[in-house]
Amino acid sequence: MTSFAIIGHLARTEGDFSLNDLPGSGGRMDVLCRCVNAALFLSHDLRRDTDCYLIMCGKPASPKTVRFSGNAIRLLSPDERSAGALIKKALTIPAGSEFRDAAKGVSVRKGGLERFIADHTFGVLDEKGSDIRSAETLPAAFILSDHLNFNEDEELLMKQSPRYSVGPACLHADHTITVLHNELDRRRCGWK
Amino acid sequence: MTSFAIIGHLARTEGDFSLNDLPGSGGRMDVLCRCVNAALFLSHDLRRDTDCYLIMCGKPASPKTVRFSGNAIRLLSPDERSAGALIKKALTIPAGSEFRDAAKGVSVRKGGLERFIADHTFGVLDEKGSDIRSAETLPAAFILSDHLNFNEDEELLMKQSPRYSVGPACLHADHTITVLHNELDRRRCGWK
Repeated sequence: MTSFAIIGHLARTEGDFSLNDLPGSGGRMDVLCRCVNAALFLSHDLRRDTDCYLIMCGKPASPKTVRFSGNAIRLLSPDERSAGALIKKALTIPAGSEFRDAAKGVSVRKGGLERFIADHTFGVLDEKGSDIRSAETLPAAFILSDHLNFNEDEELLMKQSPRYSVGPACLHADHTITVLHNELDRRRCGWK
Repeated sequence: MTSFAIIGHLARTEGDFSLNDLPGSGGRMDVLCRCVNAALFLSHDLRRDTDCYLIMCGKPASPKTVRFSGNAIRLLSPDERSAGALIKKALTIPAGSEFRDAAKGVSVRKGGLERFIADHTFGVLDEKGSDIRSAETLPAAFILSDHLNFNEDEELLMKQSPRYSVGPACLHADHTITVLHNELDRRRCGWK
């Protein structure tokens, strides 16, 4: 099982954003939608062994986490609007302290990064981290940021954790997930 | 300079599709929009040394090619609608036999795969191809298919060309571009 958590620093915490304006009305919700795609899609298949946690930190509510579970997801297409519609649905139901299903394979709870950290042994994706190709082993969970850098509070929560880089270029979060999956696929299948 | 060409087998050849329904009305135009994103975006920057050719083969006109040129592009955001709006604009102007600008960095011409092949030394992305990590050198241009396999005519046009695979899993075209860029970045920067 592989888990990705992406912090959406401005991502709307209610389901009142427009699918026609995910970047603006959703607080760069487009970034998180692309991360769902990168985390879960194979060609004509889904990565059933992967979960994707979207940590929404924007207005108007306190942080919420929307989880897409690869082993249970239905009715998800690769386009941004499809993931956006499921996120919207999840943010519309009342969130409690534990995950509650909003749709098959999509659930929501209150709380943000600290909850994910408590439940996972993780690495942080960071352009200054060590090269994933050189790492002897890789963790089963990874934390990434959206288009903004991690803030001071987040850095403090993650300061003891290993940092990894996927390459010399500074990439979008979804592209980083794709390269990470490729490295994990190769290790799993005995490709160099 | 790196060039990617993606064949959109059903991609609409007129600009009358809806940005609210890129997969349906656009003939899986969402796939091509994500390929533009993967080909051209870095975090907070663009890949100025990359061109992305979208080969539209759907209804109602004969094939057209829309080119996004990294060194000239303006007003492109990473979300699917942004690329979709520029493609729509390019498909709305009259296309001639040579590229004609529709917007800064976005141009259109008549013709499809055979035109791209005539102008480039290329490799074909194919899950049965040789591993990109093992290749001594990589070409400067790559051809990929959308969600459908290459058809017989396309296979015939490309039968002499080297085939490359990015890994053991069968990926979407945009994810494949991201992994290819990562390999090219690493080679350029002396990462293993």
